[in-house]
Amino acid sequence: MTFQTSRRSLLAQSAAILGFAFLPQARAAASWSSEAFERARPIERAVIAHPFLKALADGTISRDKILWYLAQNAGYLRNYAASLSRACAKLENPEDRALLAQWIKDTAGTETWTLDLLQKFSGGRDTTPFMRLRPTTLFYASWEAKASEEGTASEAWAALLPCFTMYEVAGRFIAGHIRKENPYREWLSAYGDPAYSKTVESAVALADRLARKETPEGRARMTENYLTSCRLEWALWDAAERLEDWPV
Amino acid sequence: MTFQTSRRSLLAQSAAILGFAFLPQARAAASWSSEAFERARPIERAVIAHPFLKALADGTISRDKILWYLAQNAGYLRNYAASLSRACAKLENPEDRALLAQWIKDTAGTETWTLDLLQKFSGGRDTTPFMRLRPTTLFYASWEAKASEEGTASEAWAALLPCFTMYEVAGRFIAGHIRKENPYREWLSAYGDPAYSKTVESAVALADRLARKETPEGRARMTENYLTSCRLEWALWDAAERLEDWPV
Amino acid sequence: MTFQTSRRSLLAQSAAILGFAFLPQARAAASWSSEAFERARPIERAVIAHPFLKALADGTISRDKILWYLAQNAGYLRNYAASLSRACAKLENPEDRALLAQWIKDTAGTETWTLDLLQKFSGGRDTTPFMRLRPTTLFYASWEAKASEEGTASEAWAALLPCFTMYEVAGRFIAGHIRKENPYREWLSAYGDPAYSKTVESAVALADRLARKETPEGRARMTENYLTSCRLEWALWDAAERLEDWPV
Amino acid sequence: MTFQTSRRSLLAQSAAILGFAFLPQARAAASWSSEAFERARPIERAVIAHPFLKALADGTISRDKILWYLAQNAGYLRNYAASLSRACAKLENPEDRALLAQWIKDTAGTETWTLDLLQKFSGGRDTTPFMRLRPTTLFYASWEAKASEEGTASEAWAALLPCFTMYEVAGRFIAGHIRKENPYREWLSAYGDPAYSKTVESAVALADRLARKETPEGRARMTENYLTSCRLEWALWDAAERLEDWPV
Repeated sequence: MTFQTSRRSLLAQSAAILGFAFLPQARAAASWSSEAFERARPIERAVIAHPFLKALADGTISRDKILWYLAQNAGYLRNYAASLSRACAKLENPEDRALLAQWIKDTAGTETWTLDLLQKFSGGRDTTPFMRLRPTTLFYASWEAKASEEGTASEAWAALLPCFTMYEVAGRFIAGHIRKENPYREWLSAYGDPAYSKTVESAVALADRLARKETPEGRARMTENYLTSCRLEWALWDAAERLEDWPV
Repeated sequence: MTFQTSRRSLLAQSAAILGFAFLPQARAAASWSSEAFERARPIERAVIAHPFLKALADGTISRDKILWYLAQNAGYLRNYAASLSRACAKLENPEDRALLAQWIKDTAGTETWTLDLLQKFSGGRDTTPFMRLRPTTLFYASWEAKASEEGTASEAWAALLPCFTMYEVAGRFIAGHIRKENPYREWLSAYGDPAYSKTVESAVALADRLARKETPEGRARMTENYLTSCRLEWALWDAAERLEDWPV
Repeated sequence: MTFQTSRRSLLAQSAAILGFAFLPQARAAASWSSEAFERARPIERAVIAHPFLKALADGTISRDKILWYLAQNAGYLRNYAASLSRACAKLENPEDRALLAQWIKDTAGTETWTLDLLQKFSGGRDTTPFMRLRPTTLFYASWEAKASEEGTASEAWAALLPCFTMYEVAGRFIAGHIRKENPYREWLSAYGDPAYSKTVESAVALADRLARKETPEGRARMTENYLTSCRLEWALWDAAERLEDWPV
Repeated sequence: MTFQTSRRSLLAQSAAILGFAFLPQARAAASWSSEAFERARPIERAVIAHPFLKALADGTISRDKILWYLAQNAGYLRNYAASLSRACAKLENPEDRALLAQWIKDTAGTETWTLDLLQKFSGGRDTTPFMRLRPTTLFYASWEAKASEEGTASEAWAALLPCFTMYEVAGRFIAGHIRKENPYREWLSAYGDPAYSKTVESAVALADRLARKETPEGRARMTENYLTSCRLEWALWDAAERLEDWPV
């Protein structure tokens, strides 16, 4: 299925093939991405050390956390598709634009798939209370809206990239640590489609193409945007662990 | 090829199958599109009566007009893809968004295809002078940028729809009047893919879905936007005929 | 000075004149604002109960918290002026647009004033570390960017309004509880310009004008946007109290 | 009155004081504006040679042309204020933003003033038919919407600048050629406020400040945008002369 090659379907096999520290090593030293990924390393480590990921992989996670995570993910993806569309409007090159259009389409498909999973795992419970965007989800969605609206094509794309790269990091961890008796095994094994690693490579290559036309200041702004979104990827896992809700 | 099912690849066969006054009759009387198409009828008639279309179909058109038309079309399509992306950002429903994403991708492919045709027909001439956006092309592209930026999803989509519907009207005319000895026959026969009529139907159905949620004032604004773009479809054919350039 | 009539210059005198529960009572029962303010009441209570406000009024607040607060406020205001500008682009009526333009100008002046205060209270310390946008400041700024970009004029304005109304609530509390020996008394007494209450009334009246043209669904979206921004007004005080920084 | 210092109130006195070729000479040779103005010179000459301006200055113009011109100007200004707002959102510096906010406010005031003049000169006729945006007005408004939406702050501002500079060129011509018995003398003598030349200087200085931070490619895009809007300033006078309407 198409959506299995998109963001929320990650890499079991490729984790074994490529080894763990895949992302930076696959880039030339001088590329924008190699530098940005180096700076993102501590956030990457914090993501794979997060108890939510561990509990997800071994299947000890609570039903409420699963429902929170799927519902918030669906809401995030709807906003992510809008931000991808704004970034797509800023591209000049038809080939680049066709890439983004495919990812908008994949994201729309993944939103539908995520909502289906939410129903499937709800056990008949009303999932409405889980759907309202929680603070961190709204934060991440709003930040991507701001970055895709205000930034250049390069700055917008750098802010949207961690949804690909940091999710792959998480997905490889899950695929590498999933337990046989995990009740969500069927769903989580979707995190093993090697096609997704090709998609991530394309997304990173687009960032590097855009970076090559940037001034040093523009590249620095790209890196800041990339790191901010990486932090929010971590924050979303952390919010799921806390079943975060609005304090007032 | 995918791009043959998109905007600039129109309907020879379906013209014969569906008969001429296809668009309005295919809609229920009460739909937004049936009313809008009725109001657009005089513009539709002006399009198919335009000497540029006749000369294109019988092959008596000058090489300069072909190059003007292809180059301006390519520039228009680049801007159209950006406006489609802005409209895509405004949609709520993932299925609708997936549709628009596919059309963004098709439009990017059609831009590339159009540029290839421009090279093919240039006979080695430098095509750069044809590439600068002429007044009517910039007008149409700017209007669609404005409508997709300022309007609601419905208003944006109504402004972007004539690129589908009015082009089909022109394409059916060309397919129905093409002469055997037309030197551009190979290119123009692409205007006969029945798949394109399905695409146009989807595009119209999306407008009607969006219109159903609108207030009467919103529907009226949709119609005004639709008619303005229809007028600019006509104006673009007329500008091609005049090999339009900037007066100052 | 012009900036004394703007957001960050609040109401000492008017607090005494108008009494505490000013905002909702000043509106007719059926107006959008009267309903929205009623729903915001619990958040309003949480704001004036926040220890940061108490410590600010009695002068026992730490220097670091003052610097955090001023620096983040300046960064917030820069983004707020951009969001006001986007909302201004969506208005139809020239009188309404002139109002927003004045508030954009006031906000720019208040940013400069806030940066001057930051220098004044820094005691020669380098204030650069305080300037980087912290999570809650970026959240609030991003949310307002998203709401002003994606929403109608009404929805955008509802999201931008709590910067007026909730700040006045806080300002009246401060003006009513300020201690004589407060070392920031000169600055905080700016929170007493009665002209600001007129500004807030204009801002609320604009929201009610826009709401009158909305469908019930549109009014409900306005209220949701208003409440979200109220929550983020509270969250910004709370972040200042915690000297919030990025966890990863 | 405030609106007398804005766009549509021009320079009688300053024409005598500053001499005719004011704009380029007032700039240093190396500034962006001095180069852009040099390239705009042929368009400037076409504007002041246009029969509409001559007929306006000597008072022989038809009533219909006056009503067309005022109504279209009002519609243009409403859209111009929206484009100014979008450009304002892109500025970084609070002082620059305050400048643009003042001009948004002035533009809103000038729209109201223009609509008042339209009523005054209508002689009781229904002015509604004149209000629908004609092709060139919609073209210019749409182009400025596109440029202010898609461009950087610099590119946006370059596209919005000719409304200041080219209008001053026209205004100085009118002020220098107005006949005593011109029935519109009272209105047209507003084209003589020296304060407007200060405003134009500020607007040009902002363009030069923004240009100094641009790459050569960015400066070239600014110049292209500036020239396109200059051409549309000419086209608007020309459309008024032809009482332009939609051909289909």
